[in-house]
Formats: sequence, structure tokens, C-alpha cells
Amino acid sequence: MDRDAWDLNPDSVQRALAHLLPASSGRVVREAFYGTRRFEDFVRRTGLTAPVLSARLRELEAAQVMEKRPYREPGMRTRHEYVLTPRGRDLGTAIVALLTWADRWLPAPLGPTVTLEHRDCGSPVHAHLVCEAGHDGFDVREVSALPGPGARALPD
Amino acid sequence: MDRDAWDLNPDSVQRALAHLLPASSGRVVREAFYGTRRFEDFVRRTGLTAPVLSARLRELEAAQVMEKRPYREPGMRTRHEYVLTPRGRDLGTAIVALLTWADRWLPAPLGPTVTLEHRDCGSPVHAHLVCEAGHDGFDVREVSALPGPGARALPD
Repeated sequence: MDRDAWDLNPDSVQRALAHLLPASSGRVVREAFYGTRRFEDFVRRTGLTAPVLSARLRELEAAQVMEKRPYREPGMRTRHEYVLTPRGRDLGTAIVALLTWADRWLPAPLGPTVTLEHRDCGSPVHAHLVCEAGHDGFDVREVSALPGPGARALPD
Repeated sequence: MDRDAWDLNPDSVQRALAHLLPASSGRVVREAFYGTRRFEDFVRRTGLTAPVLSARLRELEAAQVMEKRPYREPGMRTRHEYVLTPRGRDLGTAIVALLTWADRWLPAPLGPTVTLEHRDCGSPVHAHLVCEAGHDGFDVREVSALPGPGARALPD
């Protein structure tokens, strides 16, 4: 089917990106991936001020990407930690893909600031393309875009 | 190594995202993935005006994500088409990951507007995590983040 025959909006890629923006939201999500859970650790590791961090966490909760959970250490009052929801964790593949791309094409002067390892075996982790028939690691030129069920005709 | 011991900046994920932003740049890159090459087709399919599209294409050329190539049809003057560079094509894994995520978690009312197929076999395409030891399709919770060679100590 000719690409001109259908309209891509609403655009899924842009809707997904909106969850990593503004940059301060992306930093909070990234730190959550790296294991940060406590408010004061997010402040320290993202460099955001407490009021900005609070606003970003509220937005990420509203978007169902992160959630607040109570925890209590012995002898202390109940506090809250912030963790990724299943929806938030599922952004991990996109984040790994962006990280791999930047490390390859926009290398930092001293090398990558973070490396990702498969916990089970210690090998470096990447994101790549697979198809449901079991082929994997192919180039994006091997991918065809076709109109999905929600596609509408483009206006003439 | 404790996460507090290192600084993630410069942040690769944010540097990669900057190439898909503003949204109008993301739309141009997406259309290029879907096979669009000619200026007038980009105008029609992205919904951008010609001056905005020109500005985005110049930025994407400066970022080495897209390049301009001359072409000529019989009896016509030489014109230009716009194609992804190897660096641009390599963003494909991230774009597929974002698309898959949005289709799963932010479904459009009528379903996805685009589906991606492996050209060789016609099966649906996704992005997933792999490690260099050959394990694949694991959850992001199976991934550990460690300081890379460019990591610096966080200020106290």
C-alpha cells in the first residue's frame, strides 16, 4: 500500500517520547532504571531541586510510569519510595536503544559514563530488532512499514 | 559500585533524544524510515510547511542523521532527495522500541496506525534486549548499570 494512502496520526513514537520529556523527567526515569528509589537519592543523582523533582514525580505517577510505595525502617516513621510500574519498566528497551546509539555515534570525550550488563552473566546489553518468526539482529532497512488497523486516509 | 559514586553526565540518553526533538524533527526521521525521500512527499506526509521542513532537514543534515542526494529523472532537471545516513538508520531500533511501547501502553482508539514487518518473512517486528553472550528477550530488571570508563565521581 502506498505510504500516501494513510495518515500516521496519532503518532505512537511521539506519544512515547512525551514520557521522557522534559529532560528532567527523562533523568528521573533513567535513575529509576539504575535502581534509585528514595526522594533524597533522586535529588542527589539527578541534580534537580526538590520542588522540580516533586513535580516530575507527580507527572510520572499520573502517566502511570512510576508509583509511590510506603516503606518503613525499624524505629523510623513510614516514608515513601518511587519505583517504576510495569509500564515504566517497559520503556527500558527504548532507553537502552537510545543509550547504545549515543555511545556509538556521539561518544563522550572520556567514554561512556554507564555500561549495562546482563545480571545473570555479566555480558554487555544492547537492544536490537527481532521478528516474531525468530529472525534477529537485522538492519532497519529490512523492515517494512504498513498501515495498521487505526490508519485513516490522508486528506488529498 | 554504589550508584552515588559516579556522575552520569554527559547523559547519552538525553543526547540521543535531542535528535528526535523537536517533534517536527522526529516526524521527518520517522517518515524517512518509512521510505519517504522527496521534499514534497515529506511536506505532505509530515504536515509541516515547506519552510519548517527545510529548517528541520538542515538541522538533521548538520547532525549527520540525514543527507541530501542529487537524483535526475529522464528529461527533468537534477533534484534532491533526503535519505538517512548510517547514523540515522541506527536510530531505528530506538524508534521501533518507542512505537512498540506506545502501541502497548497508550493504544490509539482505532488501533495502531502503522505496523512493522520483517521484509523477508512478513512477521511483525519488535525491539528487545540481548546480551553479548547470546541471551535475549529478558526484562530490564535483569540489567545492571555500572560506571563506564567516562564516569566521574559525583560531587559530595
